[in-house]
Amino acid sequence: MATLLKDVRRLSDSEPVCVRVAGDTIDRVGTLDDIWSAGDEIVDAGGKLALPGFVNAHTHLPMVLLRGLADDVPLATWLERHVWPIERALRPEDVHWCALLALAESIRCGVVAVADMYFHNDAIARAVTESGVRALLSYGMIAPSLAAGGREELEKTERFADTWDGASDGRIRVAVSPHAVYTCGEDVWRESIALAVRRDLLVHTHLSETRGEVDDWRKKTGLTPPAYLEQIGALAAPTLAAHCTHVTAEDVDLFARRGVRVAHCPKSNAKLGSGTAPLSAFRAGGVATAVGTDGAASNDRLDVLEELRFACLLARAGAERVGALSARDALGMATHEGRLALGLPKANVEAGDPADIVLVEVEGAHTAPRHDAASTLVFASQSSDVTDVFVAGRPLLRERKLLAFDEERVQLEVARLAARLRRN
Amino acid sequence: MATLLKDVRRLSDSEPVCVRVAGDTIDRVGTLDDIWSAGDEIVDAGGKLALPGFVNAHTHLPMVLLRGLADDVPLATWLERHVWPIERALRPEDVHWCALLALAESIRCGVVAVADMYFHNDAIARAVTESGVRALLSYGMIAPSLAAGGREELEKTERFADTWDGASDGRIRVAVSPHAVYTCGEDVWRESIALAVRRDLLVHTHLSETRGEVDDWRKKTGLTPPAYLEQIGALAAPTLAAHCTHVTAEDVDLFARRGVRVAHCPKSNAKLGSGTAPLSAFRAGGVATAVGTDGAASNDRLDVLEELRFACLLARAGAERVGALSARDALGMATHEGRLALGLPKANVEAGDPADIVLVEVEGAHTAPRHDAASTLVFASQSSDVTDVFVAGRPLLRERKLLAFDEERVQLEVARLAARLRRN
Repeated sequence: MATLLKDVRRLSDSEPVCVRVAGDTIDRVGTLDDIWSAGDEIVDAGGKLALPGFVNAHTHLPMVLLRGLADDVPLATWLERHVWPIERALRPEDVHWCALLALAESIRCGVVAVADMYFHNDAIARAVTESGVRALLSYGMIAPSLAAGGREELEKTERFADTWDGASDGRIRVAVSPHAVYTCGEDVWRESIALAVRRDLLVHTHLSETRGEVDDWRKKTGLTPPAYLEQIGALAAPTLAAHCTHVTAEDVDLFARRGVRVAHCPKSNAKLGSGTAPLSAFRAGGVATAVGTDGAASNDRLDVLEELRFACLLARAGAERVGALSARDALGMATHEGRLALGLPKANVEAGDPADIVLVEVEGAHTAPRHDAASTLVFASQSSDVTDVFVAGRPLLRERKLLAFDEERVQLEVARLAARLRRN
Repeated sequence: MATLLKDVRRLSDSEPVCVRVAGDTIDRVGTLDDIWSAGDEIVDAGGKLALPGFVNAHTHLPMVLLRGLADDVPLATWLERHVWPIERALRPEDVHWCALLALAESIRCGVVAVADMYFHNDAIARAVTESGVRALLSYGMIAPSLAAGGREELEKTERFADTWDGASDGRIRVAVSPHAVYTCGEDVWRESIALAVRRDLLVHTHLSETRGEVDDWRKKTGLTPPAYLEQIGALAAPTLAAHCTHVTAEDVDLFARRGVRVAHCPKSNAKLGSGTAPLSAFRAGGVATAVGTDGAASNDRLDVLEELRFACLLARAGAERVGALSARDALGMATHEGRLALGLPKANVEAGDPADIVLVEVEGAHTAPRHDAASTLVFASQSSDVTDVFVAGRPLLRERKLLAFDEERVQLEVARLAARLRRN
């Protein structure tokens, strides 16, 4: 049986069309008469916008647990006094509930795919499987050398890839994640890249996030973090680099040359006081740039649409130029470039595309009147306008009701966990 | 008969309290047993957050009509080719419907008071009266001199004040609005201030919005726009100055000395490529700073909560420091400082305060778990979490249903108007 979405508007449509979803694929797009088959379930979309859904290209899903915890203290204090003590106490089942909470929020925001880096990854992979979204998952490895823990970290990654890469009908892919240049030794980096190449995995890392990190690295090696990675051969595998807040023009050239995809995380960089990444330089330099929310602890939302709006406004404010980033280009960052960043096939609500479809209502006072759909979405819509989410043809959200799992139970479990951790 | 809001949580409350609204005032706050009187209507708020509501300290309500219209063209082209031709064609009834659309959106975002500057002001005042919100309304005067139109502009303002200042049970106040230094001659400014002083009215103007404006003014007069206003005696009346994007340290000192209140409009300044106002300098200098959305044409939302979040993140990104603006201080900008900017009495959901109350649900996945209410609001909540709005005791929104006027009719009228203008 197929599902027929009646009267949706894609960004390029002047008139509503019908979209037929058969299995995990969009098989036809056209008028009702042209594409309907007997037995199709008809969903009346009533003129809602239809998008391929948003991609969150860098996050740490379970960190929703820390949302709004001590958000006015400096980064080092925040990590040492608040974040790490709690994270050390987390058990796999805790991480599973927190990941589900994050996925409930993500689906409600129209997110169809996430790139997550954390620990207790089996628990996260189970949550992703239940949720129905697509994910690039990785274990954030931290080790000064292969001898000092690096071997074990790499083994964890490889075991995780053995179990989960390609699992859940191919919705899960595994990445190799040396956490950052300053947390992994050179031999750990080299072995990570070798593993990624051998297993055909993406590399997902944090890069040049803060000014301090870059300054320290230059003092230590004479090189910026990206130049250092290039020197040790660590950009040989396709790489998704989060943040890239403080980079040079040479770094940007290097990204373009090596096909490094950037996960631009403007809200997290702002909230943590890290600064602003040079988005316009990435785009002008031909670097594929997606958007990421980072963990909710430093955002505090997993709302890609809001991230996009912030990215767009910040680019215009910084450049003092309205053309710095158009609404349509911004949408591309959260969709096409996001999918590219995660290694996903393209999707654009066209026949033959994976049936990743998000419906957005544009009936509120805040989206009236409507002159241009891309502009309405990027500048005026809010995530609560998302009514339906399909991933690989499976409905995860229908008329704002989460179908994938029991959201109330998830909230209850996370509230219990937060209370338990506060008592400790 | 009074209304008793049962189980609300104010920002400072560790436990829910009950709030009794009698007429336009909060008369008691306490436990149900302590404050209940026979005949009270009880509204079960079920633990929602209760705030005094947000103030939008600078907007042009009817500009919702232009939301998302040609938003990638430079400011001058945008004004000359798109905005002005449409505005010239607007009739008072058009402005009335557009203002109501803007007020529907505003109320849904928890806004209880707005400072609006536009034309066809009687139509706007009627819309404000119907809507139930508080407003500081003004006619944006543009005249090179008293002889060349300035007298007529001032007469319009004075007639508007005669009819509307203090009207609608005191919910409407009128301001005097010379549009900007570059659009009003010196004698127009002087007479404007004399009028404001004589009638005890606030002055509401645009100030130092773009780098070009400031540079031009310096070339022309040797002074920054604020220094020029001081020199001609135009800061003698209490002034609400919108934008102040490009100001010097001396300008900031002047604002503090003269009690100039700034309406910080970070999203509009970003979208129009104007830059970023030095919020931290305003705050450090003791300048009362509220937030404004500006018109929806350059935002494109009238969402003060989002404006606040953007302000907070932008301040942290610019200063590269987490402490640049705390969630609690940001909330103060949208509430206490906003009320001060508009000349409204303080309101804090306490006994004796005006019954301006907004209830915010914090039950969504995106606001879980809850560690700190101010942080949740500023960084995690979304305007669709606002469920109830009371202004001067009158319910304008109840359980997300707009009571004040017929929102569907308003949308229909504005859609018709937009279609008519597109045909022209």
